[in-house]
Amino acid sequence: MAEQTSQEWQGAHLMILWPLPEDKDLVEQLRKTTGLRISWTQALSKIEDESVLEDVDIIATIAALPSSKAVAPRLKLCHALTAGTDYVSRSPLFKDPSIRWTYSTGIHGPTMAEWTMQTYMNFSKDWTANWERQQRREWRTKFEAMHQRDLVGQRMGILGYGSIGRQIAKVARAMSMEVLAFTATAKETPESRRDTGYRLPGTGDPDGTMPSAWFHGVDKESLHHFLAQKIDILVVVVPITDKTKGLLGREEFDILAKHSPYGGAFIANLARGEVIVQDELIEALQTEGSGVRGAALDVQTPEPLPSDSPLWDAPNCFITPHTSSQHVKYMDRGLAILVENLRKPTGSKFINDVNHQRGY
Amino acid sequence: MAEQTSQEWQGAHLMILWPLPEDKDLVEQLRKTTGLRISWTQALSKIEDESVLEDVDIIATIAALPSSKAVAPRLKLCHALTAGTDYVSRSPLFKDPSIRWTYSTGIHGPTMAEWTMQTYMNFSKDWTANWERQQRREWRTKFEAMHQRDLVGQRMGILGYGSIGRQIAKVARAMSMEVLAFTATAKETPESRRDTGYRLPGTGDPDGTMPSAWFHGVDKESLHHFLAQKIDILVVVVPITDKTKGLLGREEFDILAKHSPYGGAFIANLARGEVIVQDELIEALQTEGSGVRGAALDVQTPEPLPSDSPLWDAPNCFITPHTSSQHVKYMDRGLAILVENLRKPTGSKFINDVNHQRGY
Repeated sequence: MAEQTSQEWQGAHLMILWPLPEDKDLVEQLRKTTGLRISWTQALSKIEDESVLEDVDIIATIAALPSSKAVAPRLKLCHALTAGTDYVSRSPLFKDPSIRWTYSTGIHGPTMAEWTMQTYMNFSKDWTANWERQQRREWRTKFEAMHQRDLVGQRMGILGYGSIGRQIAKVARAMSMEVLAFTATAKETPESRRDTGYRLPGTGDPDGTMPSAWFHGVDKESLHHFLAQKIDILVVVVPITDKTKGLLGREEFDILAKHSPYGGAFIANLARGEVIVQDELIEALQTEGSGVRGAALDVQTPEPLPSDSPLWDAPNCFITPHTSSQHVKYMDRGLAILVENLRKPTGSKFINDVNHQRGY
Repeated sequence: MAEQTSQEWQGAHLMILWPLPEDKDLVEQLRKTTGLRISWTQALSKIEDESVLEDVDIIATIAALPSSKAVAPRLKLCHALTAGTDYVSRSPLFKDPSIRWTYSTGIHGPTMAEWTMQTYMNFSKDWTANWERQQRREWRTKFEAMHQRDLVGQRMGILGYGSIGRQIAKVARAMSMEVLAFTATAKETPESRRDTGYRLPGTGDPDGTMPSAWFHGVDKESLHHFLAQKIDILVVVVPITDKTKGLLGREEFDILAKHSPYGGAFIANLARGEVIVQDELIEALQTEGSGVRGAALDVQTPEPLPSDSPLWDAPNCFITPHTSSQHVKYMDRGLAILVENLRKPTGSKFINDVNHQRGY
């Protein structure tokens, strides 16, 4: 039998911070697997009573973090059950050298690839009209679907070719789409195109063989060159940083209007709302020929999206409430990374160690 | 330059029978490619004025056929632009030895695989509820999507592992699903698992490597053994024959109820309505725990489905009006098979030649 944990973590207290009530089966299973003391506190972005943190050694969280090291003096390891770590880098604890940080990149690909293809097909096959016709108990009166495009040969541009983008690419290729990748840094050698991070077994694009072309850059010119590649669907999966805030706005939509088939692309945003200038997106959606034929937005600015936002009924726009990565085994997969790390000999490099990637 | 057609077909008159008005660009392109005389008659299942058939040598059709050889005395070749050929085998012309028949299997996979995954994800991710919430301008109030299953590890049973089933399998595997195949005859060797028919390049499962297990048979016992394999989604893509009529009914749903996870499977029917005993399907959909958790039905009995059918509002049931294979390049892909056949030297075996598969 594999060791439950390395020496370092034996007897440690793991606290799970999660917005839903305790999953007792999962906790019991985890207790057996790790031998740890485990407690569960219901929390989304804020921990109501921080006194529970007093003797906590390890935290697994979806967003909530202690307000200071003082309330969790024994804290040595924080495992983010998310792929994005914007809330981690904003935390005052992040710079504390006594705390190690890991995150859960590599588990989100399959579910988010499902969301991407689902929403795009609902757009391209006009699912809303079909569903409304079903409500009216009305069979077709003409061959309307004969005017729809299937995905064969369509071009997907993936802005941010990381763990999630790679799984989206895998599914898109299986559906006979063409994939173009855009990354911040150049990926010109086979080695540089490999995915060296954690991956749910059997998923993603480990060798970077899915894209037919790679583009890169951090300046507007590079981005604009990429956007001029006759893209049918633009998938946005960049992390949010100062450089990606407002990355896509009117100027970029104009390029899509000029170069994409049918005068525009569909935009799927799975990153953060702030990557897109939302007012300009709404205007583009409302204006024929302005470069955005439709959009699926799992993220908005702000969240929750206020009920008076014009985004709600912008034409051809699907909104989901930041749920694209959610599924019933989400926590199992995120905790599996933590469990594997706790087994590593003291001093080893952790899987998805944020300390090794400062500046992320 | 490739020959336009073989000697045999030079100067021939091709008539396209299609429910939509003439696509002049497509006809002009086809004229250039083949050198044939081409005419277009708008028709779905019936040709209004059969006098147009008088000097026709070749027909390409989606369903309409001449009522007798007498009205089309020069007819030598009928190309069905469909995968199903039930209407062909019902035609009095089908047994006429002077007429050759081809069909368009191999072009439908991608579009129908899209439909299958789209409808199943709309079920599994509860798209209808999300869309209604968007209409109400309401962000989530709880983490409802955390209770949904993603596709990873889900088991898809494909009833009829032909050209369409193989592309569905390809996409399902890319999404980390498990695939079980069911065929009429045993496929126990690598050779027997190959797809020897026409395939749109880059699609399908040419070597039959996608399924993790193969099942076969033509009797109830074999089918029931297959249905007991803990199937999450049952994809129905068998041709309609006397043997597949009423293949799935209460008895089969009971097996799914007993063996499938969560007390039932989702059923996607892309074959013909008559494969399922529709009244028993409606009852199963209306009754919790009766083996059918949901259904996507591109085909119904009869078509058009009457507006008073209880199928329209059966719980968790999506209805599309026999459009799952439709898209804007449908005819291009179907005619490409005909064009390739017309180039073959006289006496060659045709692609998708129904004469070589009598009894289909």
